[in-house]
Amino acid sequence: MHTIEEYRTLFISYLKEKVRTKEPKNLYAPITYIMELGGKRLRPVLTLMTTEIFGTNYKKALDAAAAVEIFHNFSLVHDDIMDAAPLRRGKKTVHKKWDVNTGILSGDAMLITAYQFFETYEDAIFKDLAKIFSTTALQVCEGQQYDIDFESRDLVTIPEYLKMIEYKTAVLVAGAMKMGAIIAKAPKESQNVIYEFGKNLGIAFQLQDDYLDAFGDPKTFGKQVGGDIIENKKTFLFIKAMEMATTEQCQELGHLFSIQPNDSEPKVTTVKQIFKESGAAELARKEIENYTNKAFSILDSISIDLDKKQILLDFGKGLMNRSV
Amino acid sequence: MHTIEEYRTLFISYLKEKVRTKEPKNLYAPITYIMELGGKRLRPVLTLMTTEIFGTNYKKALDAAAAVEIFHNFSLVHDDIMDAAPLRRGKKTVHKKWDVNTGILSGDAMLITAYQFFETYEDAIFKDLAKIFSTTALQVCEGQQYDIDFESRDLVTIPEYLKMIEYKTAVLVAGAMKMGAIIAKAPKESQNVIYEFGKNLGIAFQLQDDYLDAFGDPKTFGKQVGGDIIENKKTFLFIKAMEMATTEQCQELGHLFSIQPNDSEPKVTTVKQIFKESGAAELARKEIENYTNKAFSILDSISIDLDKKQILLDFGKGLMNRSV
Repeated sequence: MHTIEEYRTLFISYLKEKVRTKEPKNLYAPITYIMELGGKRLRPVLTLMTTEIFGTNYKKALDAAAAVEIFHNFSLVHDDIMDAAPLRRGKKTVHKKWDVNTGILSGDAMLITAYQFFETYEDAIFKDLAKIFSTTALQVCEGQQYDIDFESRDLVTIPEYLKMIEYKTAVLVAGAMKMGAIIAKAPKESQNVIYEFGKNLGIAFQLQDDYLDAFGDPKTFGKQVGGDIIENKKTFLFIKAMEMATTEQCQELGHLFSIQPNDSEPKVTTVKQIFKESGAAELARKEIENYTNKAFSILDSISIDLDKKQILLDFGKGLMNRSV
Repeated sequence: MHTIEEYRTLFISYLKEKVRTKEPKNLYAPITYIMELGGKRLRPVLTLMTTEIFGTNYKKALDAAAAVEIFHNFSLVHDDIMDAAPLRRGKKTVHKKWDVNTGILSGDAMLITAYQFFETYEDAIFKDLAKIFSTTALQVCEGQQYDIDFESRDLVTIPEYLKMIEYKTAVLVAGAMKMGAIIAKAPKESQNVIYEFGKNLGIAFQLQDDYLDAFGDPKTFGKQVGGDIIENKKTFLFIKAMEMATTEQCQELGHLFSIQPNDSEPKVTTVKQIFKESGAAELARKEIENYTNKAFSILDSISIDLDKKQILLDFGKGLMNRSV
């Protein structure tokens, strides 16, 4: 097996070869643009790794990995329109560099292209891949809808929030890994176990993202630290703080999450303080650990070599200790 | 075999049963809404008919027919956003009844749902259906892109225009019929012939649509007569008139297609007169006949019963003599 860094490099060069700008240029150039913007390539690397963990050469998984990464970027293009986001990975979003219509249509083409990448697989594998892909893709849409719905709601519970991030983020991590197992023709039982591993890892990953958004190091964290707070996003930290803080703190937090001051610094500082003092920050760390441990214990029930298990453990640990 | 009207009724009741509003409501209610807005159900009826023409019960084709109709409506939802269209079939468009973000996300969910409808078919059929579906869907996106590109171009040639309507409209008619043949396990050769039949019929259908938009009877034509002229759309009639009209007429036409007067009636009247006097209107009718006849002659090369061929001929003739 290769290292994560090697898988990433191998995947990126495959992607570069496969995603080319065709005619009509105005449809395909935005696709090449977003696909070359970078990113951690977390999901496709997991697909490649999982295929090798189940004893098949990663090369067989490259097309499925490409499908997963193209789908992920499709969802970013459409989400960025919905969020009116000007920047993605420090560069202009597609709808800002071109326009909203281009973002919609190029996104649509990406979703279809993702399905086409499965066409290199034999009939039965093709169907299994397309099925898990469709289920996952639809859940990602549902997750995005819950996220939008939550914006206009006063009260969101922790179970609701966890379901939202499970759909919006975790199922694609899980699906990416299941695809790797499908390609390796792993037993159905193993496919489902690796899916559950991915799902729990994905939830931990998103909770970590929420945590880093508030408490990450501005020097290493890719996005603006405090971004969620500035945009009044009801993340795990906010929901939990509202449950745990004193009446006074709740009132202040409620007020701060109803305004968008020009100078956001005092707001961010106060909110972070309440997140800490209420115990929400500490609890978020605990929850990240819980989901990571759950993922690891799920792994115990699967019959793969210990050294391969170790690779997944290391990958999970790496994700949880990241500062990016 | 059933009559076209019977296939339509059978399809509509199947669709009603299968497309239900699930949670989250804000994602699925717009899907139910657009799917129940009506329409001719032309494409799914062709799928059902083609399956029976090749000797298999139409019931086997219902899921593929649903996929085709859902995809068609997905493209309407996203196109209506891009065109900023307020009305569709006399009712509010999805992005007007809800908002643009809802239109984008519900549309995405429709595209994925369309693929899921193929899952009831066995592995090999599933793959064949998904492949023709993806190819077609991507061409529809490309056709939409060409259509958008043409808006900002001064010169569009007839071959370019024909390619655009082939992609944007005709390939889905063709694909819908090919799917019917795939489900009936017709020989590859027959699948391709029926595809070519559908493609030529689809081009004739769109040219007929362009013609009726200008010269249809306001009492029976579903849309506003003269809509394309009011919006300065470079349809076959306009491109051909610019080729055939006198220098004076061309100048007037060019000027009229650069303005959008509040009272559009005099403009529409003058443009229609130039379409007629230049011979473009007559030539459009000829071209519709050419493509219809081409479709019919393609049908000769296929070995199906004469009475079944007749059904397709009648269907084609019905389309060409329609006023709706």
